[in-house]
Amino acid sequence: MNGAQALIRTLVACGVDTCFMNPGTSEMHFVAALDQVPEMRGVLALFEGVATGAADGYARMADRPASVLLHLGPGLGNGLANLHNARKGKVPVVNIVGDHATYHKQYDAQLESDIETVARNVSTWIRRSQRTEEVGADAADAVAAAIGPPGQVATLILPADVSWLDGGVVAEPKPPQTRSPVASEAVDTIAATLRSGEPAAILLGGTALREAGLVAASRAANATGAKLLCETFPTRLERGAGLPPIDRLAYLAEFAQAQLDGLRHLVLVDVKPPVSFFAYPGKPSYLVPDGCEVHVLATDTDDAPSALAALAEAVGAPTDAATIQPASRPGRPSGSLTGDSVSQALGALLPEGAIISDEGNTSGLWAPMHTAGAPRHDWLCLTGGAIGQGMPVATGAAIACPDRKVISLQADGSALYTIQALWTQARESLDVVTIVFNNRSYAVLNMELNRVGAEPPGPKAQDMLDLGRPDMDFVRISEGLGVPATRATTAEEFATQLERALAEPGPALIEAMVPTL
Amino acid sequence: MNGAQALIRTLVACGVDTCFMNPGTSEMHFVAALDQVPEMRGVLALFEGVATGAADGYARMADRPASVLLHLGPGLGNGLANLHNARKGKVPVVNIVGDHATYHKQYDAQLESDIETVARNVSTWIRRSQRTEEVGADAADAVAAAIGPPGQVATLILPADVSWLDGGVVAEPKPPQTRSPVASEAVDTIAATLRSGEPAAILLGGTALREAGLVAASRAANATGAKLLCETFPTRLERGAGLPPIDRLAYLAEFAQAQLDGLRHLVLVDVKPPVSFFAYPGKPSYLVPDGCEVHVLATDTDDAPSALAALAEAVGAPTDAATIQPASRPGRPSGSLTGDSVSQALGALLPEGAIISDEGNTSGLWAPMHTAGAPRHDWLCLTGGAIGQGMPVATGAAIACPDRKVISLQADGSALYTIQALWTQARESLDVVTIVFNNRSYAVLNMELNRVGAEPPGPKAQDMLDLGRPDMDFVRISEGLGVPATRATTAEEFATQLERALAEPGPALIEAMVPTL
Repeated sequence: MNGAQALIRTLVACGVDTCFMNPGTSEMHFVAALDQVPEMRGVLALFEGVATGAADGYARMADRPASVLLHLGPGLGNGLANLHNARKGKVPVVNIVGDHATYHKQYDAQLESDIETVARNVSTWIRRSQRTEEVGADAADAVAAAIGPPGQVATLILPADVSWLDGGVVAEPKPPQTRSPVASEAVDTIAATLRSGEPAAILLGGTALREAGLVAASRAANATGAKLLCETFPTRLERGAGLPPIDRLAYLAEFAQAQLDGLRHLVLVDVKPPVSFFAYPGKPSYLVPDGCEVHVLATDTDDAPSALAALAEAVGAPTDAATIQPASRPGRPSGSLTGDSVSQALGALLPEGAIISDEGNTSGLWAPMHTAGAPRHDWLCLTGGAIGQGMPVATGAAIACPDRKVISLQADGSALYTIQALWTQARESLDVVTIVFNNRSYAVLNMELNRVGAEPPGPKAQDMLDLGRPDMDFVRISEGLGVPATRATTAEEFATQLERALAEPGPALIEAMVPTL
Repeated sequence: MNGAQALIRTLVACGVDTCFMNPGTSEMHFVAALDQVPEMRGVLALFEGVATGAADGYARMADRPASVLLHLGPGLGNGLANLHNARKGKVPVVNIVGDHATYHKQYDAQLESDIETVARNVSTWIRRSQRTEEVGADAADAVAAAIGPPGQVATLILPADVSWLDGGVVAEPKPPQTRSPVASEAVDTIAATLRSGEPAAILLGGTALREAGLVAASRAANATGAKLLCETFPTRLERGAGLPPIDRLAYLAEFAQAQLDGLRHLVLVDVKPPVSFFAYPGKPSYLVPDGCEVHVLATDTDDAPSALAALAEAVGAPTDAATIQPASRPGRPSGSLTGDSVSQALGALLPEGAIISDEGNTSGLWAPMHTAGAPRHDWLCLTGGAIGQGMPVATGAAIACPDRKVISLQADGSALYTIQALWTQARESLDVVTIVFNNRSYAVLNMELNRVGAEPPGPKAQDMLDLGRPDMDFVRISEGLGVPATRATTAEEFATQLERALAEPGPALIEAMVPTL
């Protein structure tokens, strides 16, 4: 058994049976070994950022990591932005980066570069496999490191000769690390704080945003009068009819400040204290109000749902005290097509069990509101702020959940970073409906240009934020990549097209022609 | 004057008047400052890899660096592969990476990451601007570092507040560093070696591949019987009728070995000893034959053309001893469309002063042969092996040389890494004709899969190299990005379409439907 075969068999033994890849010559033995290990599914991407983002989306929905296979330093570079997003979302990814053969590195061939230094940007666990005999064990360590807790990007650098030589040994999975229980004293202290009657909020993030955590948090909040808030860009938020609703902290710092205004206590559950996304001249970066005390109920290695359940008990919340979102949908929209009416149509038509990959940016602002009472669904956000995540995440989520519909809300500017995801969606016949908000602008930057207090923008500056010269035609781009597409210019057209796209199997794209904000 | 204005004014004072950019919020003051400095041209890219590759192509043709503006660590990641190519090609690039405000970094906001560690992969010169008062001087240092010699990617990290605060000071350009003259003793020693009559070759790279170096090298070679060879992937090779022809070392190591077989002496001129692109089981990585002595005439900081001229004199070569390529073109091709017939059409129609950006990979193999006697032109190669370079390099070359036609030879698989370059070509009305070789395959990987001695490929492995499920339609993709496109399925069609595309101003794309090798 060569190293590549041992590696892949070990991954499968560890529960990692999907590999999103964009391989090159140094990874050819890994590719060849796929046929020896039928349990491993290889999914080809045309660009590395699609592979890494898909691995992120897959793990968010499958609750276990996928692997990615990248080609040397440049391949890792191309995949880095979405690994950054996975890192910020604490999503496990087994990141395998092929490299030159060990003895070849000394010659500084064209593709030689320092892979470790790039990997350090996204990985705290980095290992270079040194021997074929050990690559199986390295893979098992990588999977364990990726799973954490917290989840992380674990990077295993795989020299070509380690892959191709014989002598590979399949390794056993490592025992999983469990999340730490939260000490009852800590729970009791926070319970006492919440019961004090002083203005308080519970801010949930990460692992607290599934049903169990949400229900317990809602019970505790209702029993004490505390506000319940959710981090701005959750990795995976379970929501919809039958689940406790939760307000997300606003992206714009001034709105987030209003949400936090007057608080005396902020209880953090698998989340950091809120800060502004960017710095702005004369505006605060740290958003916790002066005089507000921060309490940590659970860190990112703790068992947050259990801690919340203990908190609910400690504050004496009845088991049925959680607020439950009633079922309700907006009517089908009519008239002009806007971010608002697109979102209304989404709320009207969202199928049970849908997965929303949200990179709608400014045009997508209305989507959470109009889908709040829709059938239960999952909401996946741009965790690290590096645009070009939405379509790859949708792709990976669809691979993880073949029985669910995935809806990819996509801003036009952001779409162009990883548009190649459409091809993989077509190749794998994935049930992904992509909605591109085409406002022909980097609208968020137009807004930010004013907010940062820069000079009143002149024509050259405005030109750098304008996507309308030339106009992009997402229908043609999508068809060119193998995904059928339509264009909607009215709300009625959009609703009809969305209904049809959701009814048919396989991927589809709708280009929604919307105005800027 | 704020920091951004001082920075841009300093760049302009240093001769850097073009900035390829994909900015975000942290770079908004840089963008706003463009209107205060009319000399600086901002060129928007939809993806960072387009911006960095365009800066590479620009500098190759303008012989001075452009700047790029990227958005934090993820933006640098997206631009990294083409910065890798620039690094390997020793092309100067002033790489400006915006970052959070200095005081904002402590909060680990969503887009926070370690930029320096990523930059280290491509830059030996990295500086983080610390104060607005110094950012002008930092920029002047960055330009000087980028220019070298040798050319390099100089990375200047620009915190948002350094950019927005007042107090910027425009800095003077630093005096250019000159290339070192080669000592006459070294020239004489090599001249004596070449005159010994033992089998020898002169291998040219980098700065030796312009007219002056080629003429001198050809004189020296002809006077001594030495072979004349060119590195496999030159940064910029001047060629065509009226210039000395030169054989490039083959990409496939076995062919390169045949070119080098029997040599007793190899004279290196701004190039490293030849090595195999990848390692292959049981095949050598280092391609210099046993018993062949390596002599360095000029390093990458030396004045290579002058060293070659001195060598030609030292071996007593007459001034007219260079071989000069006579003008000759192939006839227009007919019949089936193949890499060969596409290249014939190119040779038949290549305009005077054309610039070829060559990422044709397997399908482009015939292009150098059929254009050898075409009117004088420049040939730009994939210097670092990171695919996705060709279309961005073509874009930058066209900005640098608005009076010349650029032809972008592009393999289909590689095209999908930075296809967004088409939009910038349309936006800037660039005279770039892109020829996509659509063979619906990662053909080079099919070849490599066999060459690396992997198991006979099974269906899963073959599927990872197949681009034909679904078929991509480059005409639609191109039109969707604003570039008019046609598809050719016969040699006649292709020649007609190429002739038309070259005759009309602005960008065009031709999808050439070719078989795999």
